[in-house]
Amino acid sequence: MKKTAIPAILLLTGTAIFAQQALWGGQEVVSPEIHNDYRVSFRLNAPHALKIELTGDFFPAGEQQDSQGTVEMTKNAQGVWEYTTPEPLPSELYSYSFRIDGVKVTDPANVHQIRDVASVTSTFLIGGGQADLYKVNAVPHGAVTRCWYDSPGLEMNRRLTVYTPPGYESGGAEYPVFYLLHGAGGDEEAWIALGRTSQILDNLIALGRAQPMIVVMANCNAGQEAAPGESSEGLVRPSFAGTTLMDGRFEAAFPDIIRFIESNYRVKKDKACRAIAGLSMGGFRSMHISKQYPDLFDYVGLFSAVIEPRGEVTSEVFQNTGEKLKVQFAKKPKCYYIAIGNTDFLYQANVDFRRKLDENQYPYLYCETGEGHIWKNWRIYLTKFVPMLFQ
Amino acid sequence: MKKTAIPAILLLTGTAIFAQQALWGGQEVVSPEIHNDYRVSFRLNAPHALKIELTGDFFPAGEQQDSQGTVEMTKNAQGVWEYTTPEPLPSELYSYSFRIDGVKVTDPANVHQIRDVASVTSTFLIGGGQADLYKVNAVPHGAVTRCWYDSPGLEMNRRLTVYTPPGYESGGAEYPVFYLLHGAGGDEEAWIALGRTSQILDNLIALGRAQPMIVVMANCNAGQEAAPGESSEGLVRPSFAGTTLMDGRFEAAFPDIIRFIESNYRVKKDKACRAIAGLSMGGFRSMHISKQYPDLFDYVGLFSAVIEPRGEVTSEVFQNTGEKLKVQFAKKPKCYYIAIGNTDFLYQANVDFRRKLDENQYPYLYCETGEGHIWKNWRIYLTKFVPMLFQ
Repeated sequence: MKKTAIPAILLLTGTAIFAQQALWGGQEVVSPEIHNDYRVSFRLNAPHALKIELTGDFFPAGEQQDSQGTVEMTKNAQGVWEYTTPEPLPSELYSYSFRIDGVKVTDPANVHQIRDVASVTSTFLIGGGQADLYKVNAVPHGAVTRCWYDSPGLEMNRRLTVYTPPGYESGGAEYPVFYLLHGAGGDEEAWIALGRTSQILDNLIALGRAQPMIVVMANCNAGQEAAPGESSEGLVRPSFAGTTLMDGRFEAAFPDIIRFIESNYRVKKDKACRAIAGLSMGGFRSMHISKQYPDLFDYVGLFSAVIEPRGEVTSEVFQNTGEKLKVQFAKKPKCYYIAIGNTDFLYQANVDFRRKLDENQYPYLYCETGEGHIWKNWRIYLTKFVPMLFQ
Repeated sequence: MKKTAIPAILLLTGTAIFAQQALWGGQEVVSPEIHNDYRVSFRLNAPHALKIELTGDFFPAGEQQDSQGTVEMTKNAQGVWEYTTPEPLPSELYSYSFRIDGVKVTDPANVHQIRDVASVTSTFLIGGGQADLYKVNAVPHGAVTRCWYDSPGLEMNRRLTVYTPPGYESGGAEYPVFYLLHGAGGDEEAWIALGRTSQILDNLIALGRAQPMIVVMANCNAGQEAAPGESSEGLVRPSFAGTTLMDGRFEAAFPDIIRFIESNYRVKKDKACRAIAGLSMGGFRSMHISKQYPDLFDYVGLFSAVIEPRGEVTSEVFQNTGEKLKVQFAKKPKCYYIAIGNTDFLYQANVDFRRKLDENQYPYLYCETGEGHIWKNWRIYLTKFVPMLFQ
């Protein structure tokens, strides 16, 4: 090791070459830079690259395979490529990637990333509107726990993400519980990372717009112990759950999760104090679990939900849907909430489902937004659903 | 949306274009591939790139700025670049990056990454030896909680990472507590991510080599609420804590953390049931906190520790070190453990410190390893220190 190469500040602070590398090994540019007017500049130091592109969910969808717009960045004399959005961006949590000579990568100058199934992208947040609910603000914070529960129904120990509200540790109160389910390809990390659940709950509770509650984010893939990298399968590549997606085993074994939560957390244990919701496949599961166990949940949320089982479905859970819905609605759930974007590929399936509910005069609340099957919508639905719970 | 473009499997599973993008948007190569003989292949699909390099901590340190070796990868006819290590890699948790035409990036085919200060690298694990302790194995798992404690001493709410052992939630037992501190530039995420603390504790407890215990990983940066991205500062770039590194405020306010843990967790509250250790600057803090509060800790671990305060240090915490050590050792701590690598830039400072302990006949245990100021060593020291605690 060349001691003369260590800057004085590092000697002073007692840190090592390794830390020096960790801090300075990346690109020494600021990216993204969010300007005061909410335009955003992206930068990449790449003097030897031939072409750098930027792709992100703030661009209108293009014809590209990835359904996102792509722009070419411009290289300056120092070899730094740059692109600034021509207009301010609306308040939102955004994701983006660079393409370096055709290879899609995260921004080396930005440590903040989000994984969605097998895709990792860089992320940034524009405040001043809806996304203020997704920020960590200076409000009391709940705790987030990754714990493991025993599932006799699935014959394995399985991982759960649990949000407990501010004051839970130090108090003695009992809380209502909201079970929140991910979509196909997701896992127990999806809602907490992409969904910003803990930030949304902290902020809505601080604003007096939501009751303090516990939120349980299960892993809904019946064949899986935990998220990729968090189970004994090792550092595997994430994939869709395949044949176990609609085998009904997760739905049938759902009481195992409730039993764990109600045995180990200070919770209220009646129908009026339980909610269940999910996105896409998690909406499907919420619909089927809540009608399979009609005495469990007074609040049900279907966010961009799959409605009908597909393929060869044999589980009893998915049989006699009409009869089970009749039983469920006869027990008068306090809130049955359906939300979907008007360009979602599941839009018509939800129109058809609502028609069935209407024909039977089953009451529900309906929220229709723009756009499609995207996390932007699921975060919005969460911020709308949570304030209605346990009132 | 072109419906004809959706593969049948996706229609079947009810997932959307967005999920399709998330799953298939990356590189369709397998990387890294760990062969049965523990050689490893790395691959990147980059037909238009001019040069792809691989850099990782499994190469011998070279002359590069980043102190890591770098090799050029080879492009095949399909535009996929590849490199396979000529020899099997020893058991370890490794990190690596690609350089695409000079730009250092993570592997787009590998979602598993680790952040060290401001540097994000891809990661993989070679089993069959020491790193089996870093794996998620099929053993009972503890829970990991990110919670917030009130620090009157630092006048803020601050974030903590807490490991509770398997069975904590469902039992009634009281546990000993191990306080584990990060280095300069780190935060409350460092030990749980880079240090594999929860995996090491799960595995050592399952093997009967460690007592069940609670591990508290504090944020030791006195001016900081939480890790970058987890506080109201927003999605900021990580940096060293600068002037607050050695102002003594964190050390003086350490009892705030103990008070929170002992008020809100089922713990044993005596000296024999408290341990403190840390790496680098965290070792410095462990040394100074344990002598400042000589009745608190029976177990003290200094991993590659900074010893002497540097620069203008005025805090009372750092005064009269000799006198305070005399008081501390008169109270006979059960284990005072010093570990360092023989190429560490702090090696001589630790030799000098041990000489002082020897001169005063203060007993301690000493562990010297190869190599320097790196996480590989800190994980090893953790696996050696934990089995000695609370016996």
